[in-house]
Amino acid sequence: MKFHKILVANRGEIAVRIIRACREMGIYTVAVFSEADRNALHVRLADEAYCIGPAPSKDSYLNLTNIMSVATLTEADAIHPGYGFLAENADFAEICETVGITFIGPSPDAISRMGDKSEAKRTMIEAGVPVIPGSDGLVEHMDDAVRIASEVGYPIVIKATAGGGGKGIRIAENEDQLVQQISAAQLEAQKAFGNSGVYLEKYLTGMKHVEIQILADKHGNVVHLGERDCSVQRRRQKLVEEAPCPVLTPDVRERMGDAAVRAARAVNYSGAGTLEFLLGPDGHFYFMEMNTRIQVEHPVTEMVTGVDIVKEMISIAEGNPLSFSQEDVTIKGWSIECRINAEDPDRGFIPSPGQIQLYLPPGGLGVRVDSAAYTGYTISPHYDSMVAKLIVWGETREAAIARMSRALHEFAVEGIHTTVPFHLKLLQHKKFLSGDFDIKFLDEHDVNDPDS
Amino acid sequence: MKFHKILVANRGEIAVRIIRACREMGIYTVAVFSEADRNALHVRLADEAYCIGPAPSKDSYLNLTNIMSVATLTEADAIHPGYGFLAENADFAEICETVGITFIGPSPDAISRMGDKSEAKRTMIEAGVPVIPGSDGLVEHMDDAVRIASEVGYPIVIKATAGGGGKGIRIAENEDQLVQQISAAQLEAQKAFGNSGVYLEKYLTGMKHVEIQILADKHGNVVHLGERDCSVQRRRQKLVEEAPCPVLTPDVRERMGDAAVRAARAVNYSGAGTLEFLLGPDGHFYFMEMNTRIQVEHPVTEMVTGVDIVKEMISIAEGNPLSFSQEDVTIKGWSIECRINAEDPDRGFIPSPGQIQLYLPPGGLGVRVDSAAYTGYTISPHYDSMVAKLIVWGETREAAIARMSRALHEFAVEGIHTTVPFHLKLLQHKKFLSGDFDIKFLDEHDVNDPDS
Repeated sequence: MKFHKILVANRGEIAVRIIRACREMGIYTVAVFSEADRNALHVRLADEAYCIGPAPSKDSYLNLTNIMSVATLTEADAIHPGYGFLAENADFAEICETVGITFIGPSPDAISRMGDKSEAKRTMIEAGVPVIPGSDGLVEHMDDAVRIASEVGYPIVIKATAGGGGKGIRIAENEDQLVQQISAAQLEAQKAFGNSGVYLEKYLTGMKHVEIQILADKHGNVVHLGERDCSVQRRRQKLVEEAPCPVLTPDVRERMGDAAVRAARAVNYSGAGTLEFLLGPDGHFYFMEMNTRIQVEHPVTEMVTGVDIVKEMISIAEGNPLSFSQEDVTIKGWSIECRINAEDPDRGFIPSPGQIQLYLPPGGLGVRVDSAAYTGYTISPHYDSMVAKLIVWGETREAAIARMSRALHEFAVEGIHTTVPFHLKLLQHKKFLSGDFDIKFLDEHDVNDPDS
Repeated sequence: MKFHKILVANRGEIAVRIIRACREMGIYTVAVFSEADRNALHVRLADEAYCIGPAPSKDSYLNLTNIMSVATLTEADAIHPGYGFLAENADFAEICETVGITFIGPSPDAISRMGDKSEAKRTMIEAGVPVIPGSDGLVEHMDDAVRIASEVGYPIVIKATAGGGGKGIRIAENEDQLVQQISAAQLEAQKAFGNSGVYLEKYLTGMKHVEIQILADKHGNVVHLGERDCSVQRRRQKLVEEAPCPVLTPDVRERMGDAAVRAARAVNYSGAGTLEFLLGPDGHFYFMEMNTRIQVEHPVTEMVTGVDIVKEMISIAEGNPLSFSQEDVTIKGWSIECRINAEDPDRGFIPSPGQIQLYLPPGGLGVRVDSAAYTGYTISPHYDSMVAKLIVWGETREAAIARMSRALHEFAVEGIHTTVPFHLKLLQHKKFLSGDFDIKFLDEHDVNDPDS
């Protein structure tokens, strides 16, 4: 089946990214937008665009009924959910299936099984994928929790099974804290996710966040596109991503890739997905979670493999087999992505919404900009603060860093604060330059002091 | 020798291109600018910038004295001339040598020998490079001209030896016209170039403009980076370039590459250079001229080879040997460049200078923009009308065309006319899509009718 028209159920740079892929494939696009997004770039670039409600996401980008109405009225063959919003909502995928519109992503069952973090972990154990030691499933009785914690050792992490992406996480240093935090975590999880289930995990130190991009078609073919190192995080939010990972050995890379492919097979996965792992200094790695959607940082993988991941997602959803096999995947050079946010790095990264008076992205060889911003565009306080993803490619990590530094220097965004100055400092920090940093890097080092 | 500081003796996108390369190499840059270019992007992006005179080029960008003064005062180690202006001025290269500032380009001797088109042709014959049949050297006597013309056959082309890039060319259909045109051409050449010498060449039809990019270091190493097809021309000005050439066979590619390397060796060439050939439908090719500088269309070669040509030029000028050999050069995928000019394609491409009210270049995977424009920038009537070079890369020619089309669609330039609509039409023309078009394509076909 060849899609004629795709509805893009998202906004911002990822909506623009998907529209670009569709246009290059000769597929018409339908944009949906909130009242706050009337002047958004994705609205301008799509072939058709429809307002689906007021600014709050629950009334528009999360409004299933309105989105499905537009899809039906415009006779869209498929819906691409992007990331966030409805991207990992199994009910949404199911509704699409029911009304005969293709959901560009995995099956509702695969979304559900990976969305429930405790079940995902159980599935991974069965598939022989290493997981972080802890409770095998949800904490049922406090007594069990105390016993497991003493076996695994303190500090121990309490995670909400319905959480993810850094949300719903607490740490206990001892038994007293454990008992107290479990109750608090359950209450909080019930409120935040409507699911009070929590589970325990060993607290690991010196870990890198390394993830594997996979692509799987509906004919049983699964390939991985190598890894991304996303260890530069602030409050568990990724700020900089790179491919490949500077410290990964070929042996660990192969084992991690194999584990990711096994994981995808275990849930009959199809589409693009990401297996997130923690990688220890000893080379051991542990499954954290699987994101059953396109990720913000997918461009760095595209830059080093030459694979257009969004086009592959669409092709897979059309029912086509993957056009290449694992042996065809080669990693060439180095790619880095900096997330340029409308935030003031000098004042604790507080959001800096407002109108952009002048917007001039960098250009030239090896520079890619994925953005929905333009001169005169207003960054809305209603949504995330992303202005642009700046992605570079270079022969080597050193060359990529030099190119990123030059590109950041020429990136002009006037009228709002951005994280450009933060990134410029980060690129000069000796720890970053060494490549040998873990997810606590930004907690433990001051980017204002390159030698700290 | 490692350069500390480079003066960029140019303006516009090529000045920005050179500044980008320098910054990535950790080299400081000095910009020079005319009074009309105070707000130019190259001025803003360089580490230092100095005004060198009023808008007319002869008073500023061609003002040797002022440029050399800035170079000396700022203690620049080297000068990059870009293209146009002083780039192929052997005297300028000689003066640089005399005062101990490295000219980033070939020797004054190589520039001179290739700058004189008649001498260049003689050199190529000696080097065994095929040339267009015609007078072996300048026309001395009218009788000889008439004899040669009757041997070669009419129509015949009269070229000024000091011309180039499509300037100083006349065509004679018969002996009467020949006699008349030679005299006129000599007079004109004397006026335009201060050199009345003309030579004769067979008028060839169905020819493609195919050129070979070469790089040569100061240690005798010469490599070529494959070809570019620049046959989409309007009044001998290139509008679209691509790499590779859609109709070149591997055998002809190899012979053309070898000829280019021989040509470079024949004049002891160093730096980046381009051998321009005419390629006939029968696979025969003929030397036209050599450009002893970086060319506008160099990015398409960079996109398919991964080689940063401007960085290589700088490295070669520093005295480094080439970091790779011919066997390391591989051509991957396809690249196309569209020159986006401030011209009105609906009114005979008349220049459309003025202020750009909104400038938003396209982005995303496989898109490169080399430009000095920004929102609020004024395109000056004093210089060429280039707004941006839009370059794309794709796995195949078809994918590159689809990507270029999508990128052109999203390229926003408000306030002036541009050639974006022309390019969009061109990309749909069946002749362009076939790849089988010659340099007369735009003269003989109407881009408004895709089937013409």
